[in-house]
Amino acid sequence: MEPVIAVIGATGAVGDVFLRVAAERHLKMKELRLLASARSEGKTLMYDGKPITVHEATRANLEGADIVFCSADSSVSKQWGPVVREMGGVMIDDGSAYRMDKNVPLVVPEINGDDLEWHEGIVSIPNCTTTPLVMALHAMRTVAPLKRVTAATYQAVSGTGAAAVRELNAQVEAIGAGRAIPPLEVYSQQIAMNVLPQVDDFADDDYTKEELKMRNETRKILHQEDLKFAATCVRVPVALSHSEAVHVEFDGPAPMEALKAALRVMPGLVLIEDPTQVVTPLQAANSDDAFVARLRVDPTVDHGVVFWCVTDNLRKGAATNAIQIAEELLRRNLVRRPALKR
Amino acid sequence: MEPVIAVIGATGAVGDVFLRVAAERHLKMKELRLLASARSEGKTLMYDGKPITVHEATRANLEGADIVFCSADSSVSKQWGPVVREMGGVMIDDGSAYRMDKNVPLVVPEINGDDLEWHEGIVSIPNCTTTPLVMALHAMRTVAPLKRVTAATYQAVSGTGAAAVRELNAQVEAIGAGRAIPPLEVYSQQIAMNVLPQVDDFADDDYTKEELKMRNETRKILHQEDLKFAATCVRVPVALSHSEAVHVEFDGPAPMEALKAALRVMPGLVLIEDPTQVVTPLQAANSDDAFVARLRVDPTVDHGVVFWCVTDNLRKGAATNAIQIAEELLRRNLVRRPALKR
Repeated sequence: MEPVIAVIGATGAVGDVFLRVAAERHLKMKELRLLASARSEGKTLMYDGKPITVHEATRANLEGADIVFCSADSSVSKQWGPVVREMGGVMIDDGSAYRMDKNVPLVVPEINGDDLEWHEGIVSIPNCTTTPLVMALHAMRTVAPLKRVTAATYQAVSGTGAAAVRELNAQVEAIGAGRAIPPLEVYSQQIAMNVLPQVDDFADDDYTKEELKMRNETRKILHQEDLKFAATCVRVPVALSHSEAVHVEFDGPAPMEALKAALRVMPGLVLIEDPTQVVTPLQAANSDDAFVARLRVDPTVDHGVVFWCVTDNLRKGAATNAIQIAEELLRRNLVRRPALKR
Repeated sequence: MEPVIAVIGATGAVGDVFLRVAAERHLKMKELRLLASARSEGKTLMYDGKPITVHEATRANLEGADIVFCSADSSVSKQWGPVVREMGGVMIDDGSAYRMDKNVPLVVPEINGDDLEWHEGIVSIPNCTTTPLVMALHAMRTVAPLKRVTAATYQAVSGTGAAAVRELNAQVEAIGAGRAIPPLEVYSQQIAMNVLPQVDDFADDDYTKEELKMRNETRKILHQEDLKFAATCVRVPVALSHSEAVHVEFDGPAPMEALKAALRVMPGLVLIEDPTQVVTPLQAANSDDAFVARLRVDPTVDHGVVFWCVTDNLRKGAATNAIQIAEELLRRNLVRRPALKR
């Protein structure tokens, strides 16, 4: 089928990348509707070289949409998710609203595309720090079962949204020119020339919501509820690409050569083979791949490794993964499937 | 005694901070000699409001110096260490040249000031990432023995030296003004708006020298050779203050309240009690304290915690620790001690 596709949040940071990636991948569609909040009504965005007018996200404008991408606040997802489902479409949601809902598949197609089979009109994509990590973990668990994962992140400001990118850029401009930085609007402290060891609000057990999202989403995607997991999520003054320093402990021997072989064949993942070659956020930006580098033995446990991973958080961390889910839904004939239980 | 004090590397990043901290602490001395490489001969630096002329580091200019601070390349430490020792003075070395020498104490005075008793003319201070970490670990091990430590660092460019700070600033200025960044001189990739998962060269087992320094120095200072330790050291676009995300596993129960009590009474360390209050590099800059924040249970092990620590790498990470060692040597009468074995 050639679906009618709608994008809610088309004017945002992920929306912008979504349009670029969709055009690059020649995502098939018979119509593309770009939706956003009322104040963006009438704006024009380019898709594949052609201008498209943005309209307000309304019930009328969603009518007949087969696949609806949503990248906006949780409240927006909550508002339109049930509407899209009721009208027989599928919403692919970039937000956290539905990720842990037991009736909503949380999908990285290279790992658990099969979970799409039981969708009921809403599919979630993981948090942008979860995606690259689970891709590496999924490859590695073919060698030995995963027992314990700890991670420290280095997250780009674009993960917060376009306003955060503007805030970082404005601070860099002010510092470069020797001026005082403008009043803070997005982060509670200056982010340029600084790092903030808090991403999202604090939640249970003195972990932040971001740290718990990483844990819960990793367990859900890998179907491994007993995976021991703890993270520290940190915002760094980088525009694009999230990085992570990760320790993995296995439940049994995991020879380095076998791990490398597994990572090498993992779709969407690039293993930097030379352990003395690094990969940085700037190098990973604008790529659809998750990069794994600095893979080495963790000598502090019987069976463990340490590695560094970097991914463009707006591409594979968001837009690309969402588009891959759409492609997979179409391939499996899971859009407007008559037998779909609602 | 009122010592004659010489500073080798007085014109460098640490030298600058050394002069400020020494004046703040009213370090007692009867003479202060500022030494550097030949090209700085004749320059003037300020100490406590008074100008002092910089001279070349030569044997003649070191003659009669009781305490010699050295913050320069390893080759410079290696050149002058034996000379200072032979002339009966004590060199306090900020570099890595002597840190793992079994005849050289590696000292954080709040932890192992007693190791100064066996110095033979050279004392080393730890790497700037090691110092805050061992201070936290030393406090915590009074509650339960340490078994395993893993860390991911967020290291400021001033740890590389003054040229690296200039490189970051020049890049920020160029980016802010929309110009191309100047040619790279210090780092192999752009550091502004980026992070580099490599500090120092690669060494054994695919770890960098910086990561192995952290491990080896921590073991030496804590006198615990069997401590399991692995780190990932990362350079971030921050001018001042190193941060670390740390996991500690204990060999036995370590109740959170007991750990907090131990950290509270550790000299030179500030525990941020509220686990939802963060501390950033900008906030820690220009303080002599090591800050520990975000202390929480690590649920992935039987007895463990995760925390965030931040320290001004040029102060407690270098200059302040060196000055505290001088103060401790004087207090213990270990400068030009007749009985000192040479």
